[in-house]
Amino acid sequence: MSSISIIGTGNMARTIGARATAGGNTVEIMGRDRSKAADLAKALGGGATTGEWGTTPAGDIVIVALSYDGVVPAVAHYGDALAGKVIVDISNPFNSTFDGLAHREETSIAQEAAKAAPAGASVVKAFNTVFRHVLEKGQPDVFIAGDDLQAKARVREFIESLGLRPLDVGGLNMAHWLEGAGVVTVGLANHGVGNWNFALGITELPV
Amino acid sequence: MSSISIIGTGNMARTIGARATAGGNTVEIMGRDRSKAADLAKALGGGATTGEWGTTPAGDIVIVALSYDGVVPAVAHYGDALAGKVIVDISNPFNSTFDGLAHREETSIAQEAAKAAPAGASVVKAFNTVFRHVLEKGQPDVFIAGDDLQAKARVREFIESLGLRPLDVGGLNMAHWLEGAGVVTVGLANHGVGNWNFALGITELPV
Repeated sequence: MSSISIIGTGNMARTIGARATAGGNTVEIMGRDRSKAADLAKALGGGATTGEWGTTPAGDIVIVALSYDGVVPAVAHYGDALAGKVIVDISNPFNSTFDGLAHREETSIAQEAAKAAPAGASVVKAFNTVFRHVLEKGQPDVFIAGDDLQAKARVREFIESLGLRPLDVGGLNMAHWLEGAGVVTVGLANHGVGNWNFALGITELPV
Repeated sequence: MSSISIIGTGNMARTIGARATAGGNTVEIMGRDRSKAADLAKALGGGATTGEWGTTPAGDIVIVALSYDGVVPAVAHYGDALAGKVIVDISNPFNSTFDGLAHREETSIAQEAAKAAPAGASVVKAFNTVFRHVLEKGQPDVFIAGDDLQAKARVREFIESLGLRPLDVGGLNMAHWLEGAGVVTVGLANHGVGNWNFALGITELPV
């Protein structure tokens, strides 16, 4: 089991927090608004606690569940409080028409967060290809990317505790293409599938 | 049923050609080396014919099954011979380390092929996320992208004739992100899955 801190009190924080407590993990919620964080921790149950925004998270794995443009500022604000932590970026930096990324350069929020993170912290991209309500009700594959194998192993273990399958796509530079896979997912919802009740994943050939 | 011309005589030409004839489509093979094209047409059976490189393809749908750096030159070489055709780009412009695209700009081979194509031709991106041997033996989802709805409808019909599920991700600009999904697929093969016996696709939530 893992010890998780979630920065954020929105829908993804709630959904990941609920699966995390159900999976037997220790969960701490950190919000700019302490009372919102306390409300969410109470709603989650399972011994979830509240931490103070900007201070050292209790969890070894810190999931930043903010809108994409809040991730790098939050990591920078926390600064050395994140030393030694595994930081998980779940964001989708969609452009305004949802058919591309907000950054035109070949980067990702995860890579930018890694630049802002203190020494000894590692960033892993995960969960961005999964719609929230599919994460609530389904068993989606969870793609992950990161440079630190030990950090990825810990995120894999956490994902498995949720009853989900982690699928490693490679180094942190692959976070750019996972963000692109997020774009493909929304494209499918708007065109080829016509609903949001699905997840991108893999199907293996029968042996 | 569709009338298909395949430009190329390599492995993907063979694999798509075999599924196409099995699906009852009319197939023409066009190769720079006419004898190789004739050999492939003969091997495919099902009435497959051979066309002369650079002349008007017999098929309404023209699948360019060349290595990625040969696609735009071939479309330019065919020129007006492709007027009115639906051109299908299946290529993966991987970089030398297979963790990114060969072009750093936010474009795609499909978009560049569209610029080189004559008036009245339409380009659709398809099949690039499917490994050849999975296309031989499996039932992978086939992601497609294109701006011309009528052209996409014809490619959908063709894909369905192969017993496969076409999934539309949107306009031709999405070809860039489908090429990125190709990068994710190879990343999964090299890291998270550890074999090549799978395809990217979608899993829908049970209702």
